Amino acid sequence: MKPGNLLGTSSISFSRPVYIESAASVVGQKEGEGPLKDKFDRICQDSLFGMDTWEEAESSMQKETASLAIEKAGLAIQDIRMVFAGDLLAQTIASSFGIAEMGLPYYGLYGACSTMGESLSLGSMCAAAGYGSHILCATSSHFATAEKEFRYPLGYGSQRPLSATWTVTGSGACVIGPAAPKNNFGGQKGCAVITGITTGRIVDFGFRDSLNMGGCMAPAACDTICRNFRDFGRTAQDYDAVITGDLGEIGQKILFDLTSEEGFDIREVHQDCGLLIYDNKTQDTHSGGSGCGCAAAVLAAHILPEIAAGNWKRVLFVPTGAMLSKVSYNEGASVPGIAHGIVLEHSIVPPKNSPASAAHLSGKS
Amino acid sequence: MKPGNLLGTSSISFSRPVYIESAASVVGQKEGEGPLKDKFDRICQDSLFGMDTWEEAESSMQKETASLAIEKAGLAIQDIRMVFAGDLLAQTIASSFGIAEMGLPYYGLYGACSTMGESLSLGSMCAAAGYGSHILCATSSHFATAEKEFRYPLGYGSQRPLSATWTVTGSGACVIGPAAPKNNFGGQKGCAVITGITTGRIVDFGFRDSLNMGGCMAPAACDTICRNFRDFGRTAQDYDAVITGDLGEIGQKILFDLTSEEGFDIREVHQDCGLLIYDNKTQDTHSGGSGCGCAAAVLAAHILPEIAAGNWKRVLFVPTGAMLSKVSYNEGASVPGIAHGIVLEHSIVPPKNSPASAAHLSGKS
Repeated sequence: MKPGNLLGTSSISFSRPVYIESAASVVGQKEGEGPLKDKFDRICQDSLFGMDTWEEAESSMQKETASLAIEKAGLAIQDIRMVFAGDLLAQTIASSFGIAEMGLPYYGLYGACSTMGESLSLGSMCAAAGYGSHILCATSSHFATAEKEFRYPLGYGSQRPLSATWTVTGSGACVIGPAAPKNNFGGQKGCAVITGITTGRIVDFGFRDSLNMGGCMAPAACDTICRNFRDFGRTAQDYDAVITGDLGEIGQKILFDLTSEEGFDIREVHQDCGLLIYDNKTQDTHSGGSGCGCAAAVLAAHILPEIAAGNWKRVLFVPTGAMLSKVSYNEGASVPGIAHGIVLEHSIVPPKNSPASAAHLSGKS
Repeated sequence: MKPGNLLGTSSISFSRPVYIESAASVVGQKEGEGPLKDKFDRICQDSLFGMDTWEEAESSMQKETASLAIEKAGLAIQDIRMVFAGDLLAQTIASSFGIAEMGLPYYGLYGACSTMGESLSLGSMCAAAGYGSHILCATSSHFATAEKEFRYPLGYGSQRPLSATWTVTGSGACVIGPAAPKNNFGGQKGCAVITGITTGRIVDFGFRDSLNMGGCMAPAACDTICRNFRDFGRTAQDYDAVITGDLGEIGQKILFDLTSEEGFDIREVHQDCGLLIYDNKTQDTHSGGSGCGCAAAVLAAHILPEIAAGNWKRVLFVPTGAMLSKVSYNEGASVPGIAHGIVLEHSIVPPKNSPASAAHLSGKS
């Protein structure tokens, strides 16, 4: 049996679903005061995570999250066959230093804030093809490292336009594999599986405003969502939720306009991790949350548990990324976007004696 | 049939070899004056490649190389199912801007100078699993963008220690897939196939000298080479060549010592792309060439044609990367290394009427 069927120009429908064995989230203080505060595994009040620099803090947070995901899956580090990880920093130092000490086979990724989608795409392709029983997908972002990397020194206290988003201090990690989780997913009745992917393309609408990331990324989100609908022969009604990574309020409005032009109305099912993680009105986060860690932590803390519990039968998870560096920005280059689509579905965990590879999908009717 | 068999903790032996359909290389003036000058597809005398900035120059070079590889495979852009690409710059802007205009499904990678190994690993896993008929793997580096990103402004004319390497201005790209190339590889009798991979791990020996990259990367190269030998049950005698990416003279010496300690003598078969691309004595390149583009351009221009011609039956290609950013370096962090191993073998191109998937390996006896 082939691991997956190719759909359209850029989607794969897996022949057997890939199980999410576990998921973990670790966030900072501000995220721990937001609407999802009761759902994260750990909230760290010290934004330096006990380290000396912001970069070490992010590495430490990512490693802690990855370790927790492995532990929650009932596994040891050496059970992990390969790691797909990345972050926002130059040369992805948070991941290479964070995951380094684990000594695991490692693929470093850069997809800006879409990295959790990229890691789950590559991880699920490898799991479906039998390249490993347990694959770790992880990513992180940190407010202070991202401000330093992309914007201004924190000490300047620079004013932010209302279109700006607030980079999430957080990390999310999942262990995925071809067989059902040892433990039910977080004590839920069922679990979440990946049944398909739609690979992102770089879409450049010529936006040059790095303080309006939602605007830069909305065209890429639209492109991926519409290709997913067409490749799988679906519409918004076939999903309980279509959840983008970090478009924020402004990006969401643009996304609605763009998808309408393509003939799809996603208003009723659309959610955005950047709008779920903060209360913009009381937390002064302007357009919403952003960063690799935004989509990843909301996935682990909120989306996957909702799917495992059966509250959502099928979700399209679409982390969104803005491709820029301070060099390209200062040279006047535009900010292209990319978004990777992951089809997540509710599954009943098969009884212990049944073939591990037979998933019992309870697809959305 | 499974796409591949798992060996050891981190290797895969593909059930059917993955074909390299085409390869292209584009380099700068200095590389075009070195020992491999007659082998590159294109040598550009203008180090700005007709653009206004070094970053645009590198993007332009990478796109030109990718386009040429597609053309040499007898394909159109829309025949490519997905792209695996990366570079050395912060947020991998050379790739995201270079490949962006192609509008192809895209996975951005960061593996420092090991990126060609990372892209071929992921590309070959996807090709073997049937996730695409034609997959593009590309990477690049540029002397001027790398100096700006990692070292000092060119205008300073900073002096370089003899342990330093010279970043190659160059790009290499391959189109790979599960079926034999339409055309024989570059007019050769045979072609090159990927028969296995050994995924790299991050190895940190605590080196802190960013001007001795060979020393930083040698432990990772040793780790990957020894794991490859053990996982596949081979020794150096089973390969016609073991070719690292950019260890240079100093890194090579350290590699020989480290592999000897592990019980393997690779002196007779070892080569290094960084030592092949320049004549260190006459070109003032100190320890040798380096950069993503070094391994990629030497692969496309020299290694693959030698394999396709049957001069080498089996080669272990091991691009090596040093994981650092100027932030991590300035904060006093060490420089860990990573190396990805690709097993390349000579194959006879099957006759047009035979099943495309049946490779005819002429393995090293």
